[in-house]
Amino acid sequence: MNTPKSYDTCWLKFQPIKDKQIIDKYSSSCSKIVLDENNLYLKAISKELKNGLKELLGFNPDCTDYLPDSGAIILGRIGQFSFVDDLLESHEQEGLNTEGFIIKSISSKGHKRILISAKSDNGLLYGVFRFLLHLSIEESLEDLYIFENPRSELRMINHWDNLDGSIERGYAGKSIFYENNNLVQNTERLIDYARLLATVGINSIVINNVNVHSNETELINQKISITKKLAEVFREYGIRTFLSINYASPIQSGELDSADPCDLKVIEWWESVISNLYKEIPDFGGFLVKADSEHRPGPLTYGRDHAQGANMLAKILKSYNGILIWRCFVYNCKQDWRDVTTDRAKAAYDIYKQFDGAFLDNVVLQIKNGPMDFQVREPVSPLLGAMPHTSQILELQITQEYTGQQIHLCYLIPQWKEILNFDTYAKGKGSTIKKVVGGLLHETKLNGFAAVVNVGNDFNWTGHYLAQANLYGYGKLAWNPDVSTEEITKEWIRLTFGKDGEIESVLLKMLLDSWLVYESYTSPLGLGWMVTPGSHYGPSVDGYEYSPWGTYHRADNKMIGIDRTSSGGTGFTKQYFKENENAYEYQTSCPEELILFFHRLSYTHKLKSGKTLIQHIYDTHFEGVQKVKDMKAKWESLRGKIDEHRFEHILARLTLQEEHTKEWCDVINSYFYRKTGISDIHGRNIY
Amino acid sequence: MNTPKSYDTCWLKFQPIKDKQIIDKYSSSCSKIVLDENNLYLKAISKELKNGLKELLGFNPDCTDYLPDSGAIILGRIGQFSFVDDLLESHEQEGLNTEGFIIKSISSKGHKRILISAKSDNGLLYGVFRFLLHLSIEESLEDLYIFENPRSELRMINHWDNLDGSIERGYAGKSIFYENNNLVQNTERLIDYARLLATVGINSIVINNVNVHSNETELINQKISITKKLAEVFREYGIRTFLSINYASPIQSGELDSADPCDLKVIEWWESVISNLYKEIPDFGGFLVKADSEHRPGPLTYGRDHAQGANMLAKILKSYNGILIWRCFVYNCKQDWRDVTTDRAKAAYDIYKQFDGAFLDNVVLQIKNGPMDFQVREPVSPLLGAMPHTSQILELQITQEYTGQQIHLCYLIPQWKEILNFDTYAKGKGSTIKKVVGGLLHETKLNGFAAVVNVGNDFNWTGHYLAQANLYGYGKLAWNPDVSTEEITKEWIRLTFGKDGEIESVLLKMLLDSWLVYESYTSPLGLGWMVTPGSHYGPSVDGYEYSPWGTYHRADNKMIGIDRTSSGGTGFTKQYFKENENAYEYQTSCPEELILFFHRLSYTHKLKSGKTLIQHIYDTHFEGVQKVKDMKAKWESLRGKIDEHRFEHILARLTLQEEHTKEWCDVINSYFYRKTGISDIHGRNIY
Repeated sequence: MNTPKSYDTCWLKFQPIKDKQIIDKYSSSCSKIVLDENNLYLKAISKELKNGLKELLGFNPDCTDYLPDSGAIILGRIGQFSFVDDLLESHEQEGLNTEGFIIKSISSKGHKRILISAKSDNGLLYGVFRFLLHLSIEESLEDLYIFENPRSELRMINHWDNLDGSIERGYAGKSIFYENNNLVQNTERLIDYARLLATVGINSIVINNVNVHSNETELINQKISITKKLAEVFREYGIRTFLSINYASPIQSGELDSADPCDLKVIEWWESVISNLYKEIPDFGGFLVKADSEHRPGPLTYGRDHAQGANMLAKILKSYNGILIWRCFVYNCKQDWRDVTTDRAKAAYDIYKQFDGAFLDNVVLQIKNGPMDFQVREPVSPLLGAMPHTSQILELQITQEYTGQQIHLCYLIPQWKEILNFDTYAKGKGSTIKKVVGGLLHETKLNGFAAVVNVGNDFNWTGHYLAQANLYGYGKLAWNPDVSTEEITKEWIRLTFGKDGEIESVLLKMLLDSWLVYESYTSPLGLGWMVTPGSHYGPSVDGYEYSPWGTYHRADNKMIGIDRTSSGGTGFTKQYFKENENAYEYQTSCPEELILFFHRLSYTHKLKSGKTLIQHIYDTHFEGVQKVKDMKAKWESLRGKIDEHRFEHILARLTLQEEHTKEWCDVINSYFYRKTGISDIHGRNIY
Repeated sequence: MNTPKSYDTCWLKFQPIKDKQIIDKYSSSCSKIVLDENNLYLKAISKELKNGLKELLGFNPDCTDYLPDSGAIILGRIGQFSFVDDLLESHEQEGLNTEGFIIKSISSKGHKRILISAKSDNGLLYGVFRFLLHLSIEESLEDLYIFENPRSELRMINHWDNLDGSIERGYAGKSIFYENNNLVQNTERLIDYARLLATVGINSIVINNVNVHSNETELINQKISITKKLAEVFREYGIRTFLSINYASPIQSGELDSADPCDLKVIEWWESVISNLYKEIPDFGGFLVKADSEHRPGPLTYGRDHAQGANMLAKILKSYNGILIWRCFVYNCKQDWRDVTTDRAKAAYDIYKQFDGAFLDNVVLQIKNGPMDFQVREPVSPLLGAMPHTSQILELQITQEYTGQQIHLCYLIPQWKEILNFDTYAKGKGSTIKKVVGGLLHETKLNGFAAVVNVGNDFNWTGHYLAQANLYGYGKLAWNPDVSTEEITKEWIRLTFGKDGEIESVLLKMLLDSWLVYESYTSPLGLGWMVTPGSHYGPSVDGYEYSPWGTYHRADNKMIGIDRTSSGGTGFTKQYFKENENAYEYQTSCPEELILFFHRLSYTHKLKSGKTLIQHIYDTHFEGVQKVKDMKAKWESLRGKIDEHRFEHILARLTLQEEHTKEWCDVINSYFYRKTGISDIHGRNIY
């Protein structure tokens, strides 16, 4: 039995199964584990299987290295364990990729056997977890057949944790990694975190904030022992450790007076630091760099370009099989909102497109999903898919910076699915983002996903219990972006709240609706940024309107929205491939949910619904309030069906959300009513 | 000679006089000091005189206790030193009040003598400083006659310093008192601070922030040694030490479960704490309390009223000659901006007026100058003068929270003079604020001034060198509110920059114009609060518009301003005495600089200038930018006439001010242009 933990176990519950019949059925296949005793597999693989079975079924399974005359689980890597090889068809052996796995039930001589196999330790580990989760929700083992390959190579989590224990844009407490400029004392929770990540197939982790302050600069150098210890924890679960680095490290951690990537002393400094890193952490993943952005140093500081800046580091990392991830979130902070020709949305494409083909093949560009910054609704970044000779990964934000900060329920899988299914037309119809980042569109060496995580040391990890679903769903999508939102969501609900039709139906609806509900009362028609500057929480319609970039809404008393067309606007539409350019360029073809992102319209502009734009704003905001009320009522209908702690905690968040939704509605509607003087046709209260 | 200090000496320079003729003239009266060797005067009195003379004239004056047969300074208290008494007329003796002083030159038997006398140590000290400052700007000693009485009893400085060294609303570095939750190690600067304050007649100081956090709560108890040491420093310069206290101290510092002022255990706890305070600091001044405001605890927390809450403490303090200062900055933070009937401006009067006569006579109400919160322009608080049976002191803010934060030049003496000369009509015409707080209108026991200070550990004390003038001017006005702004300002310029016609003329204009210039580009026609929430720096027109109180501008596309009349408005005008009520109630008689504070007007409303209101907003903002440019050019004309360090430092501030003024102009004008759609008749750039 598990000893009670000081934190929630999320979707990895492994509660003892109570149904005697099910225990009996499972036991007939699971009482023994056949594994190659000579293997050097990750210890976690057999340990997790044994512990998991014990927790679920209540007994310690025997381990053997021969085929017993009874039911058993056969566990091993293809090509290393003959029992395994014998049970696999050749198409199965060939079909698995490096990290894929196969689980199948086999009836042999009247015995029920389960095969869990893969070509790598990671594949085996994923198979074991998948099998245990299958048992934990008491699914049948009859004719079990699961064959899965991850679609992407990099399935990465980014932590914005700082060594002092703070988390930039963290909404779930303090860091689970660090406290007082050191590693946390008790690493038990870290191991459970690695387990959680492994169950959803995460294989890479960046352990510190992309904004690298002075303490964190030393993680490659004086504080390398912290990096090493974290790498040990994650290695055991198949996760490679990466660091965000400070491009000015040679100055700040070393004693050089420059960090110029063409300076030999600088190169030598990095060679020595990286050599030492790999001596300590032989499977170290590499670096993530936010360079020349938001006041971070970078190659431009020294008159070098991004390719020169990245390649210098990539060349050194390459000899150790390391990767350099270069983050394309760069914009000139010195722009002036008064200059209507500038457009922050254009920055990444303008800056990086020209470097296609100029990066070494172990450089990956990490590109945010939208051209702005993780807004509730943005078009997809035109840079994605537009650099055929450059590896690109998609950056998503699990932590809800602009999407309610884990106070509001905002389930992001529907948003991410839309992004992944977006057709770039980079190589004609069907050139979707999921193909771009899956490496299926252009033949790039590296591919995949990164996402800023939403966990902290809150009891429930994510502030809002239901925000756990965003982490779960991210892993599942990074593994396979073709799985449906509904499938992922139902799976998470079952693992987290058990199999119960009513709970499933209520939660499914709450989760699936939540993003559009959040959008309805915050960001009409593709506008974003109407949030309190700094905190990014709560409404402030003009909050960013006069900040340097200022290309946000430009609302006056007649018109609103940014003209980004090439006829009279900023010309951002031209960054897209023809089909999308044409769609966005014209009011008639532009998707309405993005219309104010691309077009400047009168408040009396008629939308497809027949409503005026201003009436649409009023209506969606009032409706948003009602929808959150309804959502809360739905949740309340589950009272008694869910343990009191989680029930009340989620209810409290929904109550807060309801209150803050009202604030959003009132502020946004009042702002536009006061500005336009146009009354709500339904005569509702606007202040 | 002074050893160079690590900080500026402000107006207390005492540089060696270089003009031989002047030295000779001064020396003929100042080579000896006659003082009563048996006196127990504050040591600072004779020490300052001796040191000052030495620094200015270059020699150590002899001290005697007999009248020498030569020129001399005769220093002593009336009634304690016969040489002094002999030289004073009876009307002079009678005319001096406790802290007043007299300085006069006397030619006796061919010898030039100077008498400095007073009835108290404080008076003597003020006389000595006054005399030294007179010498330091090389004024003549012929027919010298200075006879001064302070008009108010309490001339107080409030520090918003916290023990960790931070200063709430501090714009000049860290605290000069505290660091690392203790007193600063080197107290030399504290002594110079006490000297600076004494030269302008300050006699009371509150040494910690009115928002009393847990560490500062202990200044009355576990950390009393800090209080005691500060009291020792200030006592030497005639300044009594006060503490801001946490009303919940019995719970947080003691071990009680209540702070109910009617609970006997609570009273006993305070008796014991106060008794101990006076044992350690026999001349301790008393407490300042911010109760039941902005989430601070107070009597209302326990179902008691303000009088009950204040009198409990006052009664205990009374037996030690202590004072209780009760701060009338109270408003309900839970109001709702959607409710147009509420009005933050009404809060203090609504809450306190009813308690007139209910407070013990050692209770003083400390009332901010305006009903809101230290805005650039507010009407005078209607509570001032409206409680004939209650002692009131006026609270001003020297630190420039809403007036440019010591980046912008904003000399506040003109604002304070307007406030002091404001006629409340409390007892008919002539019932000015300066009479109210001078105790001349109602016969209240205590009277005077408090102000939140602007100093920190920056080299120049106040961030902006010229902000020193606000501290100097405050002291001078608290001493005598009838002195003209011009006189105070010229005096400060001479003491700080020397006697130079050109410097004086440039600086005088810069200082005297600066408040109205600041107003012109920030706060049109009595609007305030259009600042970034939290920091209170920089423009954010809607920043506070949807915060709970929300009675700020309510601008829509047709109208702006708050109707505070009693016909259809919030009725705030009714809190004034009839003459002012009538003036404010009607658009035609309301002073135009406050018109939007009291009235809601159309943007096309014609002002007295003939301009529309919106055109006035555009014009004043464009003019503000030009005026700051001109001001900077004026300053630049002084290059070479002022030491480079101060010249460049001030120039850098003016450059920043110019840049930020442009931002104010652009944001405010754009906001209103976008909202109203009304073009600038001059066709200037509005974005």
